[in-house]
Amino acid sequence: MKKPLILIANDDGITAPGVHRLIDFIHDLGEIVCLCPDSPRSGGSMALTVNGALRVKDCGEYMGARMYSTNGTPTDCVKLAWHTVLLDRKPDLVVTGINHGSNAAINVLYSGTMGAAQEGCAFGVPSVGFSLTDHSMRADFSACRPFVRAIVSGMLSHGMPEGICLNVNIPDSVQPPVCMRLVRACRGNWSDEYKQYTDPAGHAFYMLAGALINAEPDSTDTDLHVLSQGEVSVVPVRLDRTADDATAPRELQWLAELCKETFSHE
Amino acid sequence: MKKPLILIANDDGITAPGVHRLIDFIHDLGEIVCLCPDSPRSGGSMALTVNGALRVKDCGEYMGARMYSTNGTPTDCVKLAWHTVLLDRKPDLVVTGINHGSNAAINVLYSGTMGAAQEGCAFGVPSVGFSLTDHSMRADFSACRPFVRAIVSGMLSHGMPEGICLNVNIPDSVQPPVCMRLVRACRGNWSDEYKQYTDPAGHAFYMLAGALINAEPDSTDTDLHVLSQGEVSVVPVRLDRTADDATAPRELQWLAELCKETFSHE
Repeated sequence: MKKPLILIANDDGITAPGVHRLIDFIHDLGEIVCLCPDSPRSGGSMALTVNGALRVKDCGEYMGARMYSTNGTPTDCVKLAWHTVLLDRKPDLVVTGINHGSNAAINVLYSGTMGAAQEGCAFGVPSVGFSLTDHSMRADFSACRPFVRAIVSGMLSHGMPEGICLNVNIPDSVQPPVCMRLVRACRGNWSDEYKQYTDPAGHAFYMLAGALINAEPDSTDTDLHVLSQGEVSVVPVRLDRTADDATAPRELQWLAELCKETFSHE
Repeated sequence: MKKPLILIANDDGITAPGVHRLIDFIHDLGEIVCLCPDSPRSGGSMALTVNGALRVKDCGEYMGARMYSTNGTPTDCVKLAWHTVLLDRKPDLVVTGINHGSNAAINVLYSGTMGAAQEGCAFGVPSVGFSLTDHSMRADFSACRPFVRAIVSGMLSHGMPEGICLNVNIPDSVQPPVCMRLVRACRGNWSDEYKQYTDPAGHAFYMLAGALINAEPDSTDTDLHVLSQGEVSVVPVRLDRTADDATAPRELQWLAELCKETFSHE
């Protein structure tokens, strides 16, 4: 019997320590093919390359895994690995990360790590993204090991419900976490200040700054809460973007009424 | 009383006809500030520029609207307009598009137009993205007019439920549409073939091809269905990615069990 085929991608790029630690942790659990961007693509969300020329570079082997890089996005990595010559069959699992930095709360919207995981999910493959809440390139990933192995093993044995993938965040706490919690993404926003600079020619430019604001600090069933307690957060992420319950709520009654009208073009 | 402040963005870039037609259609409904990418960013999803230097260029006026471009993504446009000097107050509405090409079905995941709309929604502003199902730069947007005006007027009067924005697709049909339908995003995938080329140096590169596959052609409550009938589709899009109903379904029982365990670090 063939080993399970595990596709790995990330958004920090092929040289990031996080993806190498991920392979260290799970290399014995399957046959691994790893395709990552050739440079950091943090904040890449589910962006894909529509009109550009994508290249794939063979980066040799690491711990038995076949390593490749591309000039594309994290989502491109999953599409490309699958639909070009890199994979000889549909993967049994898509694993992304381990991201350098938190993808909890609203970060899931912007995360390239979770973008790639959702792309795997879109094609019906059990998919998970792992993140450590330390964005340093010198982050210590060792606390992730038992959680990564348990979830990857569990997904290989049990699969995942259709249209749902997992967003797993591991806290960078002094005491390594000993448990994980199934929770929801905390509400909140980035404050999104931009720091303004002046270039040598006298023109302004801006860089994103700001801080994540927890809009429900008293809730205990959120990812931000359990991370603050030194526990691992596991959030089931839904691929379907339709607000099902909202197709005709009271606040959208005006829209439902508009949908009964006939419009003319003058 | 001040006019409503409407922020406009897109993913086809500041020179695209679609955004100019949008302004033609709604310029009398509010004070308009328009910030778009300086080049096409189709497939930009909710990507944002994390470490790069963003610039904003004044592009003058169009139909009374203040026009700006940036080297950033569609989502950057919304963040930048808001958090730099372009807006003197919180906008009353974020409108994106009109996109050249469909953002129905799974396209909502990858759409920069809908990424920018969701960014507005994330900050609690009623937000909507409009798309015409013709990706040509010579597309005729005139059929969009009554629908764009009705929805923008309705949102200004009634607002939107928290955390929900609208994805409106207008069919490029021979007979202009006369009605719209509140529906859900159709399930389905892109087939995602990549066309392989060989560059002058003999190296391979790839370009995304493929076709959208409707996975539920017999359903009548989907955006792809109503568009095929020559009607306008309106899908309420949910910002929250958590699969609420899935925090403990039967298929994730194994995960719920893992969350009861204590893990050790050896």
